[in-house]
Amino acid sequence: MSASDPAAVDLFGLVAYGELLAFDRLAADARLAPDLRRRAALSEMAAAEIAHYRWLADRLGALGVAPEEAMTPYVDALRAYHDSTEPRDWAEAVTKAYLGDAITDDFLRRLAAGLTGPDRALLLDVLHDTRYVEFAAAEIRAALAADPGAAGRLSMWARRLLGEALSQAGRVAAADRGALVALIGRAGVDVPTLLRELTEAHAARMSAAGLTN
Amino acid sequence: MSASDPAAVDLFGLVAYGELLAFDRLAADARLAPDLRRRAALSEMAAAEIAHYRWLADRLGALGVAPEEAMTPYVDALRAYHDSTEPRDWAEAVTKAYLGDAITDDFLRRLAAGLTGPDRALLLDVLHDTRYVEFAAAEIRAALAADPGAAGRLSMWARRLLGEALSQAGRVAAADRGALVALIGRAGVDVPTLLRELTEAHAARMSAAGLTN
Repeated sequence: MSASDPAAVDLFGLVAYGELLAFDRLAADARLAPDLRRRAALSEMAAAEIAHYRWLADRLGALGVAPEEAMTPYVDALRAYHDSTEPRDWAEAVTKAYLGDAITDDFLRRLAAGLTGPDRALLLDVLHDTRYVEFAAAEIRAALAADPGAAGRLSMWARRLLGEALSQAGRVAAADRGALVALIGRAGVDVPTLLRELTEAHAARMSAAGLTN
Repeated sequence: MSASDPAAVDLFGLVAYGELLAFDRLAADARLAPDLRRRAALSEMAAAEIAHYRWLADRLGALGVAPEEAMTPYVDALRAYHDSTEPRDWAEAVTKAYLGDAITDDFLRRLAAGLTGPDRALLLDVLHDTRYVEFAAAEIRAALAADPGAAGRLSMWARRLLGEALSQAGRVAAADRGALVALIGRAGVDVPTLLRELTEAHAARMSAAGLTN
């Protein structure tokens, strides 16, 4: 669990590429915003991902690993998730941002228990700012208030987001060289339990935002 | 030149929208990067624009003006610039980033002389980090070293960037409600002189990067 913890290297590679890609997709999704204020807000959420990417890339560098090398195993799985969940409008974009950020944070918070020292602190630092989560949740509520009929469509969208995330999580696990699964064990959980926890928290969040499972 | 300086409001509206749009376009251009390291670098340049956007939007708010309201007059001209200068490859993307950032900075540095106090300080704060300018310049030199035959094409591209920028500057001037031109006067320069200065500095930068006028 020192400077050469392979689990930290793999996890940081996964999360770093996740941030780089989240930046790219959120920046594109910002074009769906109905006005400049909202467009700026989603752009700022995107920019926060890149700030976190930089911290992770710097830490990988300090651990003696080129960030690209640590990220490469996860490129296909993460790209497939985003390719299969491209939002068609603003309500879908903020729903994806809200649920995606939250599920990522749940995952990182759980895995942080398996790390120590600066690696653990860094992982907790790249959790999303609640300011952004609240913005996205408020936008979902506003969309549902403006068009109550949208609840069915957005609920289906949210279920699809989870389905695609779990399906790509399987690809991430397949790309894993052993360290990630070991880290989950060190965090005191097993893979099926972790997936169940994430699914349950996702369902609770959907209900809180007015969506149904 | 107090909290209600209309020239500051108009200039901040122009620059804020410029940052919001530069973010959007740089984020998209990052997809042209040949590898993840360069992609992350251009994404970070994009993210810096949004940080500056936030400062300007906050200042506009403090001056009692909604950022969207201050930005609206400049939407068409700035969007037209980017629509007419969409890079087709990585070399064009970094050339646009390099020359566009530099010409914007020249413009802001010149106009800062017409502002005072916190407005002036803010304008100097949103100048681009030299780290990014150096990255883009180094990428142009690398592109020319790898393919000396690209110099002609990139030089033409750089001239086109300037041509489009000047043409859209005319539209910005037409959208101006008087305050921007007054600010140029307060900065101790007239519009033809300012355009000549910007053009000369652009030409010098092209030469420095190995491009021809």
